[in-house]
Amino acid sequence: MTLHVFDQAIALSPAGPDTFTGHTSAAYANMVGPFGGITVAQMLNAVMLHPQRLGDPVMLTANFAAAVADGPFTVLARAARTNRSTQHWIIELVQEGATVMTATAVTAVRRETFSLNELPMPQVPPPHTVPLAIRFAPVEWVNRYHTRFVTGAMPAEWDGSDSGNSESLLWLRDAQPRRLDFCSLAALADVFFPRVFVRRKQRVPIGTVSMTAYFHADAAQLTATGEGYLLGQARAQVFRNGFFDQTAQLWNEAGDLLVTSHQLVYFKQ
Amino acid sequence: MTLHVFDQAIALSPAGPDTFTGHTSAAYANMVGPFGGITVAQMLNAVMLHPQRLGDPVMLTANFAAAVADGPFTVLARAARTNRSTQHWIIELVQEGATVMTATAVTAVRRETFSLNELPMPQVPPPHTVPLAIRFAPVEWVNRYHTRFVTGAMPAEWDGSDSGNSESLLWLRDAQPRRLDFCSLAALADVFFPRVFVRRKQRVPIGTVSMTAYFHADAAQLTATGEGYLLGQARAQVFRNGFFDQTAQLWNEAGDLLVTSHQLVYFKQ
Repeated sequence: MTLHVFDQAIALSPAGPDTFTGHTSAAYANMVGPFGGITVAQMLNAVMLHPQRLGDPVMLTANFAAAVADGPFTVLARAARTNRSTQHWIIELVQEGATVMTATAVTAVRRETFSLNELPMPQVPPPHTVPLAIRFAPVEWVNRYHTRFVTGAMPAEWDGSDSGNSESLLWLRDAQPRRLDFCSLAALADVFFPRVFVRRKQRVPIGTVSMTAYFHADAAQLTATGEGYLLGQARAQVFRNGFFDQTAQLWNEAGDLLVTSHQLVYFKQ
Repeated sequence: MTLHVFDQAIALSPAGPDTFTGHTSAAYANMVGPFGGITVAQMLNAVMLHPQRLGDPVMLTANFAAAVADGPFTVLARAARTNRSTQHWIIELVQEGATVMTATAVTAVRRETFSLNELPMPQVPPPHTVPLAIRFAPVEWVNRYHTRFVTGAMPAEWDGSDSGNSESLLWLRDAQPRRLDFCSLAALADVFFPRVFVRRKQRVPIGTVSMTAYFHADAAQLTATGEGYLLGQARAQVFRNGFFDQTAQLWNEAGDLLVTSHQLVYFKQ
């Protein structure tokens, strides 16, 4: 059996206590270096593979400190604190001796409690009735995902006019179907392209600075979601002097809110 | 001149490279240990005081790994990466040799660019026409803030009925007026009480697990805001098996969105 391209990309080898090595993946190449979502998934995978891990991820913040270079990298992941049912992780991704990503994560053993989706899934047509987007950017990683835009697709005309809002609503999943897990969910939370493109219909240099994902799904919900589509919603709340935010949500087809996410993006001009 | 109670609370002493010592503040005491927002402000202050700091905070994630005990603490803050205009920080708060908080922060030199509030400030009556809330919880720290609830005050009756939504909208500021800065802004972003109380009208054990704040305000906007009120909005998006999120925004009276925030909270039952 051949490994799924995502599993190949996030594969890590143990290389000592709290230490793993990996390699960037040509299949997830971005304009320069790799797609941020795959790097985030690689860092989370170090926690997933760590022999001391307690429970499943509930929170991950990853900070893009420098451009990740194509090639090998080391992930350092240590449990800074282990409690009875939660565990706090500090993670760094290192290349050539320099830190290029920092991250913190929390894993937890979940117990059944009162549960409620306060934010309902927007009413949209089912995924297979929405046209598949054709390669929305000239970079390799976008071919790893199937995206079906309900609203807020990449602008057809880059005329610099104000679109009035930055929201996108789309169905998305791995192009080659793969059962959802925490690592793929982390990557999917970064598939939304920069909100500044949608709002301003203008290409400006951008780079994600930080991304936080809260995993509301537990392992059972991931299993139930399987290879299905997720509905993603993303919008900016504010653009100000070099930075804007993106707030995002991912529901499964059954309407369960699996992930809420928040991202800070640098932009020029 | 006597220091403002907030400045007394966040005061730190240098104690070696990347190391500061401080002490919890009785004025900001919570039910057990200190108000989370003051601890977050203390951690951010280590970055603000660090001799190597470049620029102003644009992002802070703080993770509550264990209960902070009343007494002395050490903050370790190191610049994991310094770029031309951004800097990435890893921060730990340590008591008795054990990590009780982890955090990452990004500071940056901002440049003037295209700027836009996509999320408008909700239309609400001006602060002085909204009644001042009387001590909304039996803990000391709430006396350090003036809060004026437009909607979503602490429930008057804890009857366990579903309120239908978890949103609060309130004017807030330091009770003893103080010019806004990044540390007080970080603390103000944590003044919202747990959304589960508003939605369920039921007291259940809770604890913040992680909090992320994006600072959209720069130093000039903080100066312009001065001692004025901020309008805060907070709501949960989902409650699921032991955890819920809170997403929040803080605007100044002029309608500038100064901070967007996201929080993950543990709850029982």
